[in-house]
Amino acid sequence: MYGVGTGPGDPELVTVKALRALETAPVVAYFCKHAGRGNALATMQPYLRADHVMLPMAYPVTTELAHDTAAYCDCIEAFFDHSAEAVAAHVTAGRSVAVLSEGDPFFYGSFMHLFLRLRERLPCEVIPGVPAMLAGAALLPRPITMRDDVLSVIPGTLPDAELHQALASAQAAVVMKVGRNLGRIRAALTALDALDRAWYVERASQGAERVMRLADAPVDKAPYFSMILMPGTGRRV
Amino acid sequence: MYGVGTGPGDPELVTVKALRALETAPVVAYFCKHAGRGNALATMQPYLRADHVMLPMAYPVTTELAHDTAAYCDCIEAFFDHSAEAVAAHVTAGRSVAVLSEGDPFFYGSFMHLFLRLRERLPCEVIPGVPAMLAGAALLPRPITMRDDVLSVIPGTLPDAELHQALASAQAAVVMKVGRNLGRIRAALTALDALDRAWYVERASQGAERVMRLADAPVDKAPYFSMILMPGTGRRV
Repeated sequence: MYGVGTGPGDPELVTVKALRALETAPVVAYFCKHAGRGNALATMQPYLRADHVMLPMAYPVTTELAHDTAAYCDCIEAFFDHSAEAVAAHVTAGRSVAVLSEGDPFFYGSFMHLFLRLRERLPCEVIPGVPAMLAGAALLPRPITMRDDVLSVIPGTLPDAELHQALASAQAAVVMKVGRNLGRIRAALTALDALDRAWYVERASQGAERVMRLADAPVDKAPYFSMILMPGTGRRV
Repeated sequence: MYGVGTGPGDPELVTVKALRALETAPVVAYFCKHAGRGNALATMQPYLRADHVMLPMAYPVTTELAHDTAAYCDCIEAFFDHSAEAVAAHVTAGRSVAVLSEGDPFFYGSFMHLFLRLRERLPCEVIPGVPAMLAGAALLPRPITMRDDVLSVIPGTLPDAELHQALASAQAAVVMKVGRNLGRIRAALTALDALDRAWYVERASQGAERVMRLADAPVDKAPYFSMILMPGTGRRV
């Protein structure tokens, strides 16, 4: 099983090694919502062959259940169990499987749930990828981290107090999983008097990308593929 | 001017877009020590053409002067001024320049010093790359970040108290710039009773890579291209 990092969206930001895995593996597995194709698959579409066997893994729920409920956990864990068995069946039959993974496989993503279930049963290789946050950072007028900056990568899903605390102690910061949390993130940065250091980036490298100061971002709800970036000051110690 | 992220070392972890920039640009600039070729150039060597004009930019000092001294700052700033002018001269003459940058150009690296000097004078494009820390994470038996983990990326160069504080508040952590700071980092993790969560990775994706629990790492001085990784616990909020 290969965990293939497909990068942030632009098919050109795929690595040579990811393409090699796709050449080698007869089976291509990907996560998606219901009948959709998923972003990792969309990125790799130009590189697929007609003879690839496709293995879609459709999430049973996304936002229908709150993620802190037992019902959600049971449902999603059963889904990962089932998906892992589907991958294992191919590998056991001698067919290697490339599991597509947006960004990097080990940096917030679904692949890891297959990896943790299968790593002692099957040979697994993780092919790192360009994470979305660095595609976002590439659009800014200054680097996200310089010299001795500490970078904090913060899920926007944290509760208010934790979000505030994480941002308060951050030098450089990236807030991921913005979506419906945009208003809360903006409020935390405003309370910290850091709004003017923050940038809003939407769909980096996916086409139709937008970059602006967070202060100028018009909405309190953003697409899932958006992030807030606060570049470091580049201090030296 | 292209800032070309060349990834962590393996030529296969270069993106298609980075290769495209190399096809387009007649001039290839790279940072190096004295007469060395530098790691970014070593990564891209298989992709260079005989007709590429090479522009080496050799650091005048690396560890000869402490980085908090005025002498170091003056020397290194003058070097970046001079390097920026050398790049600008090519671009002004109509020759685009690919500036090779290990890992990602905006994620701790020298390219940004050229970018900050030139971005208002020249068209600049930053091509993100796979950062070394994710090549290191790909070698671990568990993901570096899951679900709602906060990740802290910490330069090992921080003074003891700051290093301790940064590690104390981290959920998942990557410590970069380990080198001669390995002993201090180990001491901080030991004091925090976190030694058994930490992994040591050397030369990830560069060949001769080594991965072990930090507790088993035999030395108190490591190569510059080593890192300490502390995976998150994958909590849900």
